[in-house]
Amino acid sequence: MSGTETKLVEQLVTANRILANEGIVDVFGHISVRSERNPEEFLLSVSRSPAAVRAPDIQRYRLDCTPLVEIKEKHYVERVIHGGIYQARPDIKSVCHSHSDGVLPYAVSGETIRPVIHMGTLFWEGIGWFDRYDPDGNLLVSTPSEGKALAESLGNRRAALLKNHGSVVVGESIVAAVMAAIYLDKNAQIQMASAIVGKPVFIEPEMGKIASRVFHSPLVQERAWGYWVARLPKGWESDAGLG
Amino acid sequence: MSGTETKLVEQLVTANRILANEGIVDVFGHISVRSERNPEEFLLSVSRSPAAVRAPDIQRYRLDCTPLVEIKEKHYVERVIHGGIYQARPDIKSVCHSHSDGVLPYAVSGETIRPVIHMGTLFWEGIGWFDRYDPDGNLLVSTPSEGKALAESLGNRRAALLKNHGSVVVGESIVAAVMAAIYLDKNAQIQMASAIVGKPVFIEPEMGKIASRVFHSPLVQERAWGYWVARLPKGWESDAGLG
Amino acid sequence: MSGTETKLVEQLVTANRILANEGIVDVFGHISVRSERNPEEFLLSVSRSPAAVRAPDIQRYRLDCTPLVEIKEKHYVERVIHGGIYQARPDIKSVCHSHSDGVLPYAVSGETIRPVIHMGTLFWEGIGWFDRYDPDGNLLVSTPSEGKALAESLGNRRAALLKNHGSVVVGESIVAAVMAAIYLDKNAQIQMASAIVGKPVFIEPEMGKIASRVFHSPLVQERAWGYWVARLPKGWESDAGLG
Amino acid sequence: MSGTETKLVEQLVTANRILANEGIVDVFGHISVRSERNPEEFLLSVSRSPAAVRAPDIQRYRLDCTPLVEIKEKHYVERVIHGGIYQARPDIKSVCHSHSDGVLPYAVSGETIRPVIHMGTLFWEGIGWFDRYDPDGNLLVSTPSEGKALAESLGNRRAALLKNHGSVVVGESIVAAVMAAIYLDKNAQIQMASAIVGKPVFIEPEMGKIASRVFHSPLVQERAWGYWVARLPKGWESDAGLG
Repeated sequence: MSGTETKLVEQLVTANRILANEGIVDVFGHISVRSERNPEEFLLSVSRSPAAVRAPDIQRYRLDCTPLVEIKEKHYVERVIHGGIYQARPDIKSVCHSHSDGVLPYAVSGETIRPVIHMGTLFWEGIGWFDRYDPDGNLLVSTPSEGKALAESLGNRRAALLKNHGSVVVGESIVAAVMAAIYLDKNAQIQMASAIVGKPVFIEPEMGKIASRVFHSPLVQERAWGYWVARLPKGWESDAGLG
Repeated sequence: MSGTETKLVEQLVTANRILANEGIVDVFGHISVRSERNPEEFLLSVSRSPAAVRAPDIQRYRLDCTPLVEIKEKHYVERVIHGGIYQARPDIKSVCHSHSDGVLPYAVSGETIRPVIHMGTLFWEGIGWFDRYDPDGNLLVSTPSEGKALAESLGNRRAALLKNHGSVVVGESIVAAVMAAIYLDKNAQIQMASAIVGKPVFIEPEMGKIASRVFHSPLVQERAWGYWVARLPKGWESDAGLG
Repeated sequence: MSGTETKLVEQLVTANRILANEGIVDVFGHISVRSERNPEEFLLSVSRSPAAVRAPDIQRYRLDCTPLVEIKEKHYVERVIHGGIYQARPDIKSVCHSHSDGVLPYAVSGETIRPVIHMGTLFWEGIGWFDRYDPDGNLLVSTPSEGKALAESLGNRRAALLKNHGSVVVGESIVAAVMAAIYLDKNAQIQMASAIVGKPVFIEPEMGKIASRVFHSPLVQERAWGYWVARLPKGWESDAGLG
Repeated sequence: MSGTETKLVEQLVTANRILANEGIVDVFGHISVRSERNPEEFLLSVSRSPAAVRAPDIQRYRLDCTPLVEIKEKHYVERVIHGGIYQARPDIKSVCHSHSDGVLPYAVSGETIRPVIHMGTLFWEGIGWFDRYDPDGNLLVSTPSEGKALAESLGNRRAALLKNHGSVVVGESIVAAVMAAIYLDKNAQIQMASAIVGKPVFIEPEMGKIASRVFHSPLVQERAWGYWVARLPKGWESDAGLG
């Protein structure tokens, strides 16, 4: 249980369901949020498919990924992704790890995702590349050293690809992280289709930096969040207030 | 509120939902209609996702994009697209701006969409190309000068692409604009797939001009509109009569 | 109204809805059946989107496409496709004309659809190609001479492509025609994807001829029909018994 | 009827519906399970679309594919796929045969599916290739000799492609076979998209062997199964307890 941060837990549950409904996560993938009352802790579900996450599933972890409360259920082994990034990036409040269909071809081929549409300008600073799995690794980011290496690959950027695996995106809020996950996938899909049609013209960083600002405005974030919530199947938002 | 044009407002609300349901708009995108009682005004929602637009959201604007009534809610910053086109094109009654998946690869690569299927002959006059964003631009068409430049790029045509951004289509009625938005996307998708399969054969303008006529017949427009309305999820059409 | 052939009308209505639900037809496209009581007549809806067709919409036409009963509603202008084929092909009981997404890239590029999967062996005899639109044509097959020319392009085969337009498939029954429409589209889709992945290996006609037999067995046709009916949205089959 | 193995029958029914809902099977395709009380027998539905399979449809077969109980309904002619593999692979408890869209392009082109994403490491041992249809064959695997040849093509692997036809996957349980069917398709789709984007980097067998282990953990299998069950349309799981 998450203590007193009821509102944040509720939003995190909804974020799980949005990401499932928008096809960003499926059996696997997870999103976390940094605690508001203690920035040295973060909130993340126990090991669950995001579509099935409910408020009581949300756990509280220290940044070294040890849980504050012992539970019988399993933790995500990849929670080191979250802990590693929260340690390296004090500016970041939410982390999402996924393997969405639009992004995977880039994680598999090693080609770079670059902004081609307005929403893609969120990534005007470029995209990190992680392939420093432990030598005896299993393609999961499951050890503290892998979590640390991933945070280094991410650097100051908003997203990184994980070789043959997926992506991680970060945001200044849950909404910002959800938006980054959805728009990284969308930009990737359009980039691929553009390469079929002709030659994609990338948006230059200077333009991208300016163009991306609109996605940080509360008005636009609320509009987007409201849209994603409205698309949830009936009942999917109904448990979100528990906690 | 829109004054006395209840029927037109109702149709505009339905158009918003059709475009959302057919995947032409998502969080973003908008459709407007020129007022019937005063051609120097147009109707457009406040800043909303099209799926969420209801009759009370519809506002009345002068062609310079100033609202007739002051409201607390935000206006679309891109309403200059609509105002600019209504000024330049007295023949046009409805304008739709979107970023649909089929069209974006062409807006990104700079390749041209050309008619390859019957529905695509709506665009037998060709497609405009807009890239004259303001020098300090943010990839939005948000200033009067950008709106004017976009209208020039459109010229006398039915559609224009906006570089790295999306498209605008116009029509002699709401139904015609919705049809143009849906069929521009469809033609673009088939054109891309045709280029994978072989070499697309384009429909020549003379043939296209003749072939396009059927889409202006009231019978066909009603059939299409009825089909799109029937596909709306239960309840989506139920608010459309408000106003 | 269709006179006494209630069962056939009911099946034709269901076929319209199946084709709509499986994405083979949308605003446009139509399926007809030869009358059982008089092979010189066929049954076809008035001008309607297939998803909206109900039993009272089904009309009776002579093979020259004149209606037996005068009505106020409009007829499909392309009903000459049906009349032309029923005249040329006494073996055929059902005709379907559509513009499905999988097939269109071949109609646009002029590339041939050839059997690559088991269901595609229905087309082991090859696919016809029609491009003999009237000189002042509008890309519709709307005159008796175009209907006749299309039937010639079809020849003894089960399917033909219409340049920049779509396809026509035929069957020994409504079920057979629906199956042909769905599997022509599926084979086309897989053929395209196979060409992306590598080089498609086509199924030779001798093998195809044998392999196709299973799709003419009543057991398999019933299984397929039952599957498509079960996939109809709730309520879509409920009007099918009217008439 | 299946005698006393009620739980297993129930799980097999659910597996049929999951595979239908996830787009792995449609009109055709089937999944079986080896009997727990007698490993010389297996359970499989009568000839039905998987979406329509109910507990009373499940039959009991000897490994030579003769049914234990005579019934009026038809058996799948391709049940020799199941019998052939159960004979050759005592380690295997479940077999699934399908023609999913992601896999077919590889079965058509003869290109190999190789692991490119984590889920694809289930196939780290490679994929078999079957093209030894009987000389007078019909592209079905319908004779005992074809079933035996297919089992040989499969070898000790988890999956094999059937030329111009589809695939077979095997598992140590129903859940494992369902997972293999879904992830073979997913890996194939991403492999194709990766080849469009750039050049896919395959996961080497040593890495794949280690990375695949997580998919055999009960925790992960339960999470996946629970996710697929939760996605079933309302009512689809409600018959699953019959038997």
